[in-house]
Amino acid sequence: MKVQVLREILEFNNDLAAKNRSGFDEKHVFVLNIMSSPGAGKTTFLERTLKDEFLKDYRIGIIVGDIQTTLDAEKLEAYNVQIVQINTGVPCHLDGKMINNACKDLELDKIDILFIENVGNLVCPAEFRVGEHHKVVLLSVCEGDDKPLKYPLMFHESSLFIITKIDMLPYTDFDMEKVKQNALQINNRTDIINVSAKTGEGIKEWADWVKARRKDVFGS
Amino acid sequence: MKVQVLREILEFNNDLAAKNRSGFDEKHVFVLNIMSSPGAGKTTFLERTLKDEFLKDYRIGIIVGDIQTTLDAEKLEAYNVQIVQINTGVPCHLDGKMINNACKDLELDKIDILFIENVGNLVCPAEFRVGEHHKVVLLSVCEGDDKPLKYPLMFHESSLFIITKIDMLPYTDFDMEKVKQNALQINNRTDIINVSAKTGEGIKEWADWVKARRKDVFGS
Repeated sequence: MKVQVLREILEFNNDLAAKNRSGFDEKHVFVLNIMSSPGAGKTTFLERTLKDEFLKDYRIGIIVGDIQTTLDAEKLEAYNVQIVQINTGVPCHLDGKMINNACKDLELDKIDILFIENVGNLVCPAEFRVGEHHKVVLLSVCEGDDKPLKYPLMFHESSLFIITKIDMLPYTDFDMEKVKQNALQINNRTDIINVSAKTGEGIKEWADWVKARRKDVFGS
Repeated sequence: MKVQVLREILEFNNDLAAKNRSGFDEKHVFVLNIMSSPGAGKTTFLERTLKDEFLKDYRIGIIVGDIQTTLDAEKLEAYNVQIVQINTGVPCHLDGKMINNACKDLELDKIDILFIENVGNLVCPAEFRVGEHHKVVLLSVCEGDDKPLKYPLMFHESSLFIITKIDMLPYTDFDMEKVKQNALQINNRTDIINVSAKTGEGIKEWADWVKARRKDVFGS
């Protein structure tokens, strides 16, 4: 019974996610679902993305998911973007319904790129579509190069794997080649970008990836 | 309906966990449920605990939970302890039934302390009792000092909060005082220990905590 109910929950969510996606496509909003463990640096990475302005020709929206607190949204509010904070209370992931509700507080007509910062969790968010065009997974060099093998669904579902905090590489035993091999073993179509939100390394490459993928979908 | 079913799943799990706990109490096995984000250093911390031998007068057992792979159990096999690896496949946490099954592969009569290394996830494992005497949460200084506020259930449920990788403190903007304030704001009864599995700092203090808590339960 448990399996049956969980399947129904996922199917129900997939239907809602598909409706969200139709709405995004209609309004030409390009949507990325950004996921990672707690503390991999999602918010700092988005802050640096806004600060460096490689996407300044696009109107940005951000939905921030957390179980509790508005700390992340407060950090991002300094920039000229539309922001909605979701507090899930208990659930360990965002789902289609939460994103549908959050979009009611956004002017989608005035957004070209919507970043969804999911709850910090390397497992469950990968199971719940929210209507995104692509999933993006972040992993910091502090977390260990074995993670793609240990949390395969997340890496399998993501179109882009971003290795964060590479400025801290000298202080870890993280093996960059090994983590890439591990990620490609799980998903051989994934793109991989090395990033430091501290030094700015990789931020332009990431912005170029976003522009190119948006162009794939909307032609501009 | 969804909420009702989830409540039934949790109640069913609580019953199984209570049965596990009775079995552990009967055999004088002291059980700690060790939880954290992926990459906070649970396995390395347990390796150092075994290597430093502050618990050498106790017979140790370890149950290692991962979604996939036996990498963690392989690291711990070098030490003279009983080990069982659980691969959950999909579930993002261990539960009472998984621990009950795993215990069939352990000689509990020959174990004084059982460490359960949960799946790397700062959310869901806190909701599922497994029959433990105490929950222990690890957080590395690489993850950010805001995490107790953002993932409150985990910190609320844990008797001990271990701050890991403190050797990396100089390379982060992690504020030790702030994280402690945040943790105590969520749970003012929690104990807190700073640890580096690299330098060995805090490992004796942790072993002393384990011995003292075991004595609270079994008198020796």
